[in-house]
Amino acid sequence: MRFNIVAKILGLIVGVVSLFMLWPLAWAYLDNSSEVGPIFSSMIIGIAISVILLFAGSNSTSTDMRPREALAIVGLSWLSVSAIGALPFWLSGALPNYTDAFFEAVSGFTTTGSTVLTDIEANGRGILFWRSLTHWLGGMGIIVLGLAVLPFLGVGGRQLFRAEVPGPVPEKLTPRIHHTALLLWGVYLFLSALEAFLLYVGGLSPFEALTHTFGTMATGGFSPLNGSVGQYNSLYVDSVVTIFMFMAGANFALHYRLLARRDLNAWWRDDEFRFYLIVILGAIVTISLILFKNNIYDSVSKTIRYVSFQSISIMTTTGFVTADYEQWPVYAQSLLLILMLIGGCAGSTGGGMKVVRLMILLKHVGIELKTLIHPRAHYSMRLNGKTVEWGIVLSILAFLSLYVIVFVISFLLLTLLGVDLITAIAAVAATLGNIGPGLGNVGPMDNYADLAMPVKWILSFCMLFGRLELYPMMALFLPDTWKR
Amino acid sequence: MRFNIVAKILGLIVGVVSLFMLWPLAWAYLDNSSEVGPIFSSMIIGIAISVILLFAGSNSTSTDMRPREALAIVGLSWLSVSAIGALPFWLSGALPNYTDAFFEAVSGFTTTGSTVLTDIEANGRGILFWRSLTHWLGGMGIIVLGLAVLPFLGVGGRQLFRAEVPGPVPEKLTPRIHHTALLLWGVYLFLSALEAFLLYVGGLSPFEALTHTFGTMATGGFSPLNGSVGQYNSLYVDSVVTIFMFMAGANFALHYRLLARRDLNAWWRDDEFRFYLIVILGAIVTISLILFKNNIYDSVSKTIRYVSFQSISIMTTTGFVTADYEQWPVYAQSLLLILMLIGGCAGSTGGGMKVVRLMILLKHVGIELKTLIHPRAHYSMRLNGKTVEWGIVLSILAFLSLYVIVFVISFLLLTLLGVDLITAIAAVAATLGNIGPGLGNVGPMDNYADLAMPVKWILSFCMLFGRLELYPMMALFLPDTWKR
Ligand SMILES: [K+]
Ligand SMILES: [K+]
Repeated sequence: MRFNIVAKILGLIVGVVSLFMLWPLAWAYLDNSSEVGPIFSSMIIGIAISVILLFAGSNSTSTDMRPREALAIVGLSWLSVSAIGALPFWLSGALPNYTDAFFEAVSGFTTTGSTVLTDIEANGRGILFWRSLTHWLGGMGIIVLGLAVLPFLGVGGRQLFRAEVPGPVPEKLTPRIHHTALLLWGVYLFLSALEAFLLYVGGLSPFEALTHTFGTMATGGFSPLNGSVGQYNSLYVDSVVTIFMFMAGANFALHYRLLARRDLNAWWRDDEFRFYLIVILGAIVTISLILFKNNIYDSVSKTIRYVSFQSISIMTTTGFVTADYEQWPVYAQSLLLILMLIGGCAGSTGGGMKVVRLMILLKHVGIELKTLIHPRAHYSMRLNGKTVEWGIVLSILAFLSLYVIVFVISFLLLTLLGVDLITAIAAVAATLGNIGPGLGNVGPMDNYADLAMPVKWILSFCMLFGRLELYPMMALFLPDTWKR
Repeated sequence: MRFNIVAKILGLIVGVVSLFMLWPLAWAYLDNSSEVGPIFSSMIIGIAISVILLFAGSNSTSTDMRPREALAIVGLSWLSVSAIGALPFWLSGALPNYTDAFFEAVSGFTTTGSTVLTDIEANGRGILFWRSLTHWLGGMGIIVLGLAVLPFLGVGGRQLFRAEVPGPVPEKLTPRIHHTALLLWGVYLFLSALEAFLLYVGGLSPFEALTHTFGTMATGGFSPLNGSVGQYNSLYVDSVVTIFMFMAGANFALHYRLLARRDLNAWWRDDEFRFYLIVILGAIVTISLILFKNNIYDSVSKTIRYVSFQSISIMTTTGFVTADYEQWPVYAQSLLLILMLIGGCAGSTGGGMKVVRLMILLKHVGIELKTLIHPRAHYSMRLNGKTVEWGIVLSILAFLSLYVIVFVISFLLLTLLGVDLITAIAAVAATLGNIGPGLGNVGPMDNYADLAMPVKWILSFCMLFGRLELYPMMALFLPDTWKR
């Protein structure tokens, strides 16, 4: 690894993120709150570190990166941004120690939304805005990562999900990523502005409209309210958030095509989007029927409202809560658990293993069964009208296998630290899938504050592994990455 | 499907299994027990059905089968043998209804060892002998299935695990299977006789020596005692059973080479056997350290004795119990849970997903990681000194994926029937992996009797799916199988 290239890019990213602290600083200043000092100090420390890194990287000349350098930069950038992003929580005393502050920052930037704050509303608007802003910044990073960076590195079969945006196709990786990133950020910004406007029109203050938008568009789930979105008890707010969660869990390249090219069929033509829609609608109908049969809510409309919100919140791995779904019948819970593991679409801000990977797994099993019955026939896998090569199928199956391996190792480490079996499984699933709230002791109405320090560090790494599609974090643990 | 071929083979299998009822009949006769009538009637019904099937298939001339016919015959033979094998339990009144009797018989023939009998010792020696004999017969079927039938059908990458036994290599499938089957049965019979002899020498009655041998060699786990093997509280019995469980969980083709060719290195040269040994030894050392640190037993030797027995019993998916491992620390339990899912070696009587499949999954992930760091290099997968083709890797990954899919569907069906989340996961894992006792409500000291009827039917199918490596049962559900 050439450390000067790495330092240069990290310096740039840390600098930009630190400058974004101006925004929460403004809220704290408006409120004349004691949070001004801690946030300002955090920003200065962040900028100082950025300057040092940029200085260390100033002698780097080449712009093309080797894959392992690119992977390491992705892993290190999320790590360093979280390390800096933890400072406001720690310096302000919002969280009692750096471990908790780091957990909260990782949970923010990875758009997981698991929290260790016990009384959220006890904090000022500065800290709460920063907390939600980490989601939004993390979401921006993930869209570019999923549609522009990882596809070019061929990670986990990601080459399938390359954003096909118009423009020059240069030979070098970097200019193309810049171009793609700007277009996708435009879509992200546009949808965010639209949601914030709709929430503001619905009666939310600018502060609450923005923070909930950040939580939605990043499929993050942090809310500045103790009772999450459910605290409004508003059909309008629930509906707006439901629709935008659904959008955030779909591929942003499709949204780009829809918006920029006025291609109204962009969504429906996409195999993954159709599957995503069908799974969600199927889950909503099934769960609604179960709840209605069990008389959980007193009207059909209420049932559909809460079920739609909660199903979409969980499948997109947002984690906003309007209903305590642990009180729902066990079959409804088990369906939610499955949705959780599937997650959002490729190229969305959603977590989980991704809809398209499930589709390829199912198609692969289907072909194996057909071959068994007709051994002499040859079948090929097709997605969006194109043949999927076996190498890509192998890559995707390797990714899913590695996902299970990371799951099992994290689970074993947690039980080694004395966490009970169910909480261990639920916590790993919720963090590795970037969901946020899980079931059991870390369920929708509980939080992660009571877990032991080393458990919080392991779960922080689960969030990073899940969010960055495993390999960038794996790369940091492989000795080869650190060779010059 | 040509039904006359199917009828002929099923008739043969049902006939042979029915004739084996003479053995429990002899025990019942010796005891002058009321079980004589029910067992005799069951045998007569079995033989009658066998004759009808043989008559229906008498006009079949061709001996070569199409793959889907072979798969369907495998699925149907376990189903019909279980249906006949349930009769003694039902007719004798040992179990109150046919659902329970069928569950017990499936559990026997699939060598799962989950029971719905609440007071085992309340039954006579006839019924208990038949119960254990179903294990032993099922084990004979599985060895031939895993080493001779499925490899030739190329099911789930099974062609890797073909028994390489000497002798003529005819072009047709059938004579070769006959030859391989006879040699492997010889090994199975020899090891069974040896264990029964050692247990008899250790002071067990012929009845108890035989029934525990059946449970061991088939990795079944039924015991005629309420307290399983732990009831003897004998170091000698524990040791003998531990060693033979370990053998039963390894590839019988290796045992054949060791015994017939005096090839003492046969075990150690095999990659899968080495991995199996290392995993078991690693688990025993780790769990012993945990238990010793937590002062679970008062001496090192006692700790090692119970941990060795329980680790091997669970990894080989036998399910004999000498210790209530739900009282062990949570980390020890989570390790047992992982062993359970791995299961025995290919070509053994053990269940689970099989050691070699885990190895190939791990190797595949390793290659993917290496490719990521060195994109231009080409790697190939090697096992036992030979290259594993990508087609086989794809097949094995398809098998593992289908395993997970069957798991998820069964889990959802169980929760739909009101089973709680934990019991549902534990029961599906224990039956699909042919383990027997699980954790939670179906843990080592509980049993399956209290579950609802439809739950018992679903779990019966889980046992069959797991035991027959999924595809023979899948084939029964595919319409193409039933076309002429
Ligand atoms: K989330
Ligand atoms: K068993």
